[in-house]
Amino acid sequence: MKIDGKHYRSLWWNDGSGVLEIIDQRWLPHELRIQPVATMQDFADAIHEMRVRGAPLIGATAAYGMALAVADDPSDGNLDAAWTFLERTRPTAMNLRWALDRCRTALRPLPEIDRAPAALALAHEIADEDVEINRRIGENGLPLIREIAARKPAGEPVRLLTHCNAGWIATVDWGTATSPMYQAHDAGIPIHVWVDETRPRNQGALTSWELGSQGIPHTYITDNAGGHLMQHGQVDMLITGTDRTTRRGDVCNKIGTYLKALAARDNGVPFYVALPSPTIDWNLDDGVADIPVEERDARETPHVQGKTESGEIGAVQVSPDGTPGGNPAFDVTPNGLVTGLITERGICPATPEGLAGLFPELSQAVR
Amino acid sequence: MKIDGKHYRSLWWNDGSGVLEIIDQRWLPHELRIQPVATMQDFADAIHEMRVRGAPLIGATAAYGMALAVADDPSDGNLDAAWTFLERTRPTAMNLRWALDRCRTALRPLPEIDRAPAALALAHEIADEDVEINRRIGENGLPLIREIAARKPAGEPVRLLTHCNAGWIATVDWGTATSPMYQAHDAGIPIHVWVDETRPRNQGALTSWELGSQGIPHTYITDNAGGHLMQHGQVDMLITGTDRTTRRGDVCNKIGTYLKALAARDNGVPFYVALPSPTIDWNLDDGVADIPVEERDARETPHVQGKTESGEIGAVQVSPDGTPGGNPAFDVTPNGLVTGLITERGICPATPEGLAGLFPELSQAVR
Repeated sequence: MKIDGKHYRSLWWNDGSGVLEIIDQRWLPHELRIQPVATMQDFADAIHEMRVRGAPLIGATAAYGMALAVADDPSDGNLDAAWTFLERTRPTAMNLRWALDRCRTALRPLPEIDRAPAALALAHEIADEDVEINRRIGENGLPLIREIAARKPAGEPVRLLTHCNAGWIATVDWGTATSPMYQAHDAGIPIHVWVDETRPRNQGALTSWELGSQGIPHTYITDNAGGHLMQHGQVDMLITGTDRTTRRGDVCNKIGTYLKALAARDNGVPFYVALPSPTIDWNLDDGVADIPVEERDARETPHVQGKTESGEIGAVQVSPDGTPGGNPAFDVTPNGLVTGLITERGICPATPEGLAGLFPELSQAVR
Repeated sequence: MKIDGKHYRSLWWNDGSGVLEIIDQRWLPHELRIQPVATMQDFADAIHEMRVRGAPLIGATAAYGMALAVADDPSDGNLDAAWTFLERTRPTAMNLRWALDRCRTALRPLPEIDRAPAALALAHEIADEDVEINRRIGENGLPLIREIAARKPAGEPVRLLTHCNAGWIATVDWGTATSPMYQAHDAGIPIHVWVDETRPRNQGALTSWELGSQGIPHTYITDNAGGHLMQHGQVDMLITGTDRTTRRGDVCNKIGTYLKALAARDNGVPFYVALPSPTIDWNLDDGVADIPVEERDARETPHVQGKTESGEIGAVQVSPDGTPGGNPAFDVTPNGLVTGLITERGICPATPEGLAGLFPELSQAVR
C-alpha cells in the first residue's frame, strides 16, 4: 500500500546489497525507518522485538531467515538449527511455523549446492503468495461491506471496528482485516473504521497510520470503548485478523479480541475474522485449551511509547514503581462467537465443516 | 487509608486556613500533591479536570463547593447559581447531583444568616457519612470473599479483578469496590487483585498505588487481558464501583466495565458492584437508553501520562498526528449481567425489587 503516495511492501529484497530490508515497525507511526536484516540474530531480533509483526509478515520474514541460514551453511544440521532458532522467536503465530516447515520440507530433498538459490526463490514465492492471498481476502470480504452499504441511505458510511493491526504492515501487502476495507474504499463505498488502541503495544496507532495514509476515515478509541459503541448501534461489523485458527474455527488473536467478540454477540453485530490459510492449525481443535499463549515481558504493560512533547520517541511509565505487570499477548475467541471466516478461497462458517469445505486437501493432510 | 503509614482522607477541611484541601489526583501515583480548593472556579476545575474523581468524592467535594458559595453570598439566587455551576462539571456521576440537591434542599428553608455555618456542617456530615457508608460496604462484601477463600486450600489467595479506581481516593475513605478488599486483607484472608489499567486515564495506576500502599498483592494488566484470565479460571470474582445505578440495577461505570461483565457471564465468574445509595438514580430504569454518557476531550485518548525516563511527569502521543480520537467516558452494564449489588445496607440482586427492598423509603420517594 502507499506511504506518502509511494507504494511499499512491508519487506523487500535489496538485490544490490543482497539483504532483506524491512520497515522497523517499532518507530511507527511517528517515524518511517528502513532497516536491513543481515544476520541470523537480526532475524531473531526483528521477530521477537516486533520490528516486524503480524502473523503473515512473521512467516515471510522467517522464510528469508531460512534463506540466509542455508546461504551460510546448507547442511541438514543447519537447516534444523535455523528452524529451531527462528521458531522460538514468537510462540503463538501459526504462520511462523508454517513458513519454517515449508522451507525445510522443500529444501531438504535438494542437493546442498542447490539449496541457497532455492531457499531465496522460495522466500520470494512465499512473500508474493502472501500478497495474492490477502488481495483475495479483500475481494471475498468486499461483498459483506457492500451489502451493509446497500441497506443504508446513500453516502452513509459502513462503520467497521477492528482490533490490533491486521493491516498491510502485518502482512507483505494489503493486510488481512484491512484488505476488504481498502477494496471497499477503492470501490467508492464510504466506510468509517473504529480503531481499537490495542494495549499494551498500541497497534491501533499503526492501523490509524495505515488508514490515514490511504485516506480512509477512522477514529482511534480505547480498547474499552467498543462495547459501548456496539450497544448504541454505532458499529455495523467487526473484522479482525488472527494469529492462529484451529480446525474448528477458534480464533487466537491479539489480547482483547475475545471481549469484542462477546460484545458483538450481545448486540447482534457480525464478527468476521480475515485469515490466510497458513494461519490455520489443522492439528488443533480447542483453542482455549490447546493454543500456547505468549506471556510477553511484564514491562510492556506499564510502559507506553509515543511521541514526547519535544517530538522525540520516548516512553512513560504509567503505574507506580515496582507494580507487577501481567502481559498475556493473545486470547482465544471460541468459534461460537465468530460469524464467519474470510479466507482467500471465500467465506465459511467457523466450524470444522466450514474450514474443511474450503480447504479439503489441507484438512485431510493431517491426523 | 494509609500513605507511607500515615492515615489520610482524600479531602479534608483545614481549620487553620478555613479552606478545603484535596489530594490532586492528576499527579498520582507518581507524586503526592496536596492542593487547596479556595474559589468556585477551583471547585469546578477540581471536578472537571479530575483533580478529584470518583462519584462519591465528587459528591463530597461539591458539598464543600456549596458551602463556599453560601459563605460568599447566602441568597437563594446564589444557591441556585452554585448548584448549576457545579452540576455542569461532570454529567454522569449521580452523587454530584445528589449532594447538590441535598445541600440546596437543606439550606433553602434557613434564614440567610444561618446558611454558611449550616452548609459547612452539612459538607462535613456528607464527607463523614461517605466514610461510614463505605466502611459498611466493606463489611457487607467481606463474606463474599470469605466464602470463596473457604472453598480454597488454606493460604491460596482469592483472585479479584477490578476496573477503574473505586478505591479510597475515589471516595472520602475506604473506597467502594476496594472496601471489601481492604477488610478481607485486614481479616487475614489472602487476596490477589488483577488491576485493569483503565484507559484512557489509567486509573488502574491509582488502584495499584492504593493496594501497594496497603500491602495487598496485585498485578497491573491491560484492559484487554481480563477476558483471557477469566477463560483460564484465574479470576474468582469481579468487583467494581459505579457512577450511577438505575432503580432496576443497570450500572453505569467507567468505560470498559460492560466488556468485563460480558466475560464474567461467559465464564461463570460472579460480578458484584459496590455502591453507596447516593449513587442510585431512582428516576431511571433503562440505563443504556437514558443515562447521558460524558464524551470527554478526544485528546485524552491518544495521550498517555506517566513518569518519563528522566523521572518527570510527562505525556506521550501514541497515535499519529491528526488522528481523530473518540472518548466516551462511561458505559452501562445491563442488570442481567450483574450478580449482585453491595450496598451499605447489604447485598441485593440487581433488580427493581432488590434495590427497593433495601431502600424502601428512597424508592418510594420518587415517581
